[in-house]
Amino acid sequence: MDDHKLDGIDVLGLGNAIVDIVSYAEDGLLDALGLCKGTMTLVDHARSETLYARMGPAHEVSGGSCANTMAALASLGARVAFVGRVRDDELGRVFAHDLRACGVHFEVPPSTDGPPTARCLVFVTPDAQRTMATYLGACVELSPADVDPELVKRSRIVYLEGYLWDRPEAKQACLKAARIARANGGEVALTLSDPFCVDRWRDEFRRLIAEEIDILFANEAEITSLYGTGSFDEALRQVRREVRVAALTRSARGSVILRGDEVQVIEAIPPRQLVDTTGAGDLYAAGFLRGYTAGLDLAACGRLASHCASEIIAQWGARAEKPLRPLWERVANGQ
Amino acid sequence: MDDHKLDGIDVLGLGNAIVDIVSYAEDGLLDALGLCKGTMTLVDHARSETLYARMGPAHEVSGGSCANTMAALASLGARVAFVGRVRDDELGRVFAHDLRACGVHFEVPPSTDGPPTARCLVFVTPDAQRTMATYLGACVELSPADVDPELVKRSRIVYLEGYLWDRPEAKQACLKAARIARANGGEVALTLSDPFCVDRWRDEFRRLIAEEIDILFANEAEITSLYGTGSFDEALRQVRREVRVAALTRSARGSVILRGDEVQVIEAIPPRQLVDTTGAGDLYAAGFLRGYTAGLDLAACGRLASHCASEIIAQWGARAEKPLRPLWERVANGQ
Repeated sequence: MDDHKLDGIDVLGLGNAIVDIVSYAEDGLLDALGLCKGTMTLVDHARSETLYARMGPAHEVSGGSCANTMAALASLGARVAFVGRVRDDELGRVFAHDLRACGVHFEVPPSTDGPPTARCLVFVTPDAQRTMATYLGACVELSPADVDPELVKRSRIVYLEGYLWDRPEAKQACLKAARIARANGGEVALTLSDPFCVDRWRDEFRRLIAEEIDILFANEAEITSLYGTGSFDEALRQVRREVRVAALTRSARGSVILRGDEVQVIEAIPPRQLVDTTGAGDLYAAGFLRGYTAGLDLAACGRLASHCASEIIAQWGARAEKPLRPLWERVANGQ
Repeated sequence: MDDHKLDGIDVLGLGNAIVDIVSYAEDGLLDALGLCKGTMTLVDHARSETLYARMGPAHEVSGGSCANTMAALASLGARVAFVGRVRDDELGRVFAHDLRACGVHFEVPPSTDGPPTARCLVFVTPDAQRTMATYLGACVELSPADVDPELVKRSRIVYLEGYLWDRPEAKQACLKAARIARANGGEVALTLSDPFCVDRWRDEFRRLIAEEIDILFANEAEITSLYGTGSFDEALRQVRREVRVAALTRSARGSVILRGDEVQVIEAIPPRQLVDTTGAGDLYAAGFLRGYTAGLDLAACGRLASHCASEIIAQWGARAEKPLRPLWERVANGQ
């Protein structure tokens, strides 16, 4: 690691800048609204307004998969920056506040015209699953010009959100960041985001993973979708040939981390209560990367990741209500 | 009760229409910001922005003491309306959505100019206490013209928030609603809101309570402040001479309900976890009024009130994450 990186950024994330509007919902409401449980659907502004009018009383909390990971990483004590686009409206100010208040460097200027800040309607059913309808709003303005090469050069890891592939300009922003990072000794991480997202971009993702990605995060549905197999073990065999490090999550069955010949099977940590699974994958990635950038071994990275995931599903939403630093200290001290 | 009231509204609330911005905070931050723990301070827009910039990552949830009570009453199955003022901005739409989504009738048109929708910065310390800084924004536009006499006549109980006394026009709106209610066979309830609010309006509140109020809600600090005594028992003796029904809360020591010679001592119900005391008083009032308007005896009203308070302090914020109807059903079925 270069000296200037010690003074730099541990992880730079690129992702959609979204405020979540989170509500409790009975299963019947999902059916009535034509939503498919457990998935994320992209919707236009009109559909977003229609769904909101049918949604129960809600609360708002900053979201976005990658931004959630960055907020958690900062709360764990890492040095973090985020690139994404909001508008200069109230929800945009809320989003920026919440990242900066965690200590995340976030200086992309908000759009001054065009669509409003993105929002994701999150319906949480009694089984703690979340079903999401996202209106991307100002996120569609994200472009390569928002990626500051100097910021990338200062970063040890660039972390990309698969969802960004849904917009050509945002994808180009990711590719720009990835290339600058690798040309300057950084590593590039990708989260596959969602099995439907993998379905939309399977071939591109496979090429990208083989050529540009050092660390891959995926859950079981995503990794099996990526390789078009029903078998997790078969997906493991394929992914380890193509990427240096893969961290693959399996909900309550824990996770598997691969690096070359090394395989770490990590147990899930049962939450003190199961409230809302929103953010489990995002916080897992944060815990893993906090350990990884600090030089912990893969088993410890996985343990911290599991602690973070366990913490977030015991509460509503994907931003931790309390600082996560004690989890880092516990794992760093070998407990 | 008149026949038309059976088709009418159980409780009509008048209060400040506020969105809460809730964050975890260490005690040291309160000191650094010059905030007095456990209290509500009114702040101007500039101070609100300064405090927000220093606040940790937050989430937004509709609030306002009276509006919290109305939302909970509707969730418990009562027929409810609310009068208060927001602006036609994003937070105003969030506030209106959250009330209507509970089933609360809320049709006061938003202001189209003037200050933005009110916000309350809520700092929750590790001991679960909340410290609040409120910027009243559009609330200051509330006036007697917002009180529809027909709506009041259809209501069995008009519920007033003491905080409204801080604005002369809002106070006049309360007095107008109270007089119409009593002239039409309705009852008037008041919550004292806050010991500092009582300090500001002690004489007016005492006159009001003696002359216009049927049901008084107060906590120990408020009721002893009202009568300028350090003794809860002395305050009890005074209040029972002046108001028909008083429901006086004492945090973990439960509550005392008085009506003429009747005294009900109600135990607090320990929460499954103590997270944030925001909304304990608001939800207590909701539980009490749900029982009261349904004709339950005072002991059952108090039990339901305690259940509601216990539920809300086990979560963040003052709006219940899940429907409260099961609490009502439990108490109504005599459990």
